[in-house]
Amino acid sequence: MSRQELIQNIKDRASFLCVGLDTDLRRLPANLPRNAEGMLEFNRAIIEATSEYCVAYKPNTAFYEALGSEGWKVLEESIRLIPKDKLVIADAKRGDIGNTSGQYASAFFEHLQCDAITVAPYMGYDSISPFLDFPGKWTILLALTSNAGSRDFQFLECPEGKLYETLIRKARQWGGAEKLMFVVGATREEELSTVRSLAPRHFFLVPGIGAQGGKLQKVCELAMTDDIGLLVNASRSIIYASNGSDYAGAAGRAAKKLQEEMASILSKRGII
Amino acid sequence: MSRQELIQNIKDRASFLCVGLDTDLRRLPANLPRNAEGMLEFNRAIIEATSEYCVAYKPNTAFYEALGSEGWKVLEESIRLIPKDKLVIADAKRGDIGNTSGQYASAFFEHLQCDAITVAPYMGYDSISPFLDFPGKWTILLALTSNAGSRDFQFLECPEGKLYETLIRKARQWGGAEKLMFVVGATREEELSTVRSLAPRHFFLVPGIGAQGGKLQKVCELAMTDDIGLLVNASRSIIYASNGSDYAGAAGRAAKKLQEEMASILSKRGII
Repeated sequence: MSRQELIQNIKDRASFLCVGLDTDLRRLPANLPRNAEGMLEFNRAIIEATSEYCVAYKPNTAFYEALGSEGWKVLEESIRLIPKDKLVIADAKRGDIGNTSGQYASAFFEHLQCDAITVAPYMGYDSISPFLDFPGKWTILLALTSNAGSRDFQFLECPEGKLYETLIRKARQWGGAEKLMFVVGATREEELSTVRSLAPRHFFLVPGIGAQGGKLQKVCELAMTDDIGLLVNASRSIIYASNGSDYAGAAGRAAKKLQEEMASILSKRGII
Repeated sequence: MSRQELIQNIKDRASFLCVGLDTDLRRLPANLPRNAEGMLEFNRAIIEATSEYCVAYKPNTAFYEALGSEGWKVLEESIRLIPKDKLVIADAKRGDIGNTSGQYASAFFEHLQCDAITVAPYMGYDSISPFLDFPGKWTILLALTSNAGSRDFQFLECPEGKLYETLIRKARQWGGAEKLMFVVGATREEELSTVRSLAPRHFFLVPGIGAQGGKLQKVCELAMTDDIGLLVNASRSIIYASNGSDYAGAAGRAAKKLQEEMASILSKRGII
């Protein structure tokens, strides 16, 4: 999916919502079996209930790998259930030496047919370039994450600014706004505008809304651009909105609520 | 496997060799089918031919994921073929926020029954602690990698030394030498002794011998301890020693050659 198609989808849906499919076997509602079939049924119902309100889905590979090859089958089948107009982001946080990253790129872009993958930066350019080199696909580089541990390394003072700033400066030379995005946590309000000034055109994938406590209005105030420039992810606050048999309806309502808030923001800015 | 057991295994085998199972479908010898069955058959023959000469195996998850759920099945079945006295390292380079890293830990330590996993550091402590918290398992943190891109971030000057030095200083407070190792590339001769001085007791997993050009003697000179402290990995130089139907025999000979070199080093140092 191209940048222009993504922007058009956001305008058409009045939504820049990404629904995170962090489907945890242990948190399936009681009316579903706690196995691979239950996970797939859960994802099917969540996707059906939320697809009207979002432009992207982000399956988190860890929750599928926890079931081994059976879980990977659920991942494959879940991705096939996602409507074709959605950006499918593998939240996989991969990254390795060049020939290995090439295998990961093949796994996620070719075999799984994802549109995008999250990638870890520590190993540098040749760990990232095999993803960037894939035509028509997106690389989403971890820049500033929403967890407490982000303080351990990302804020270290380096010669040209903090580590996350240095990373963004370097990475924007590797990939333009047509194929590279950054992960920037919603809980990092103080830094969001700094990050935006460093990457004025790149899309940010923003986790941390909902269960992690970030606020949508504030994020948009600090980092939205004329081309939107934001995909805001919510996982647990949508997919576990209810743990009863009404889980899909509750997920749909939670997604709708966020979408309406997004529509209002987009409208106030004259984007739609 | 405990540190003491690992050290004893190294002494018993006169080897600190780890064989990397980077099994690339496209590089299977012509007498094997280019599919999941071929990969498993290849791994079976490689493991049988090399197990006498090594103490660890390191399947690289990327090569299995490239085949999706079928590839994960090959990974599961390959791990079951590895003799019980070997350290099984999932070269997976995972790392995410706490609850997600917990799922990865479960995937690799419980479902796949690996002894160790390689972990990426960028997201900090809470991305690593779920691995460290697993009793009897090893976390192997990327510190100084052997690829060209390692120059992009790992050598950045931070207030308390380079980024990789800062990382090791911090991480050694998170995990002692009984459960934490570091990845330190064999191509980084200049830095190997610095890294050893920062982590005098931790084992290092050292890739980059063979196809990547690192030299075994030099690595041992700079970073071996009285407790050995090194697991030296070779992947492509062993498993692709021949691309003919004699691939297993050639792999065995390549592993034996490294093991004999290791035995000589261990003997000269009076460790065996």
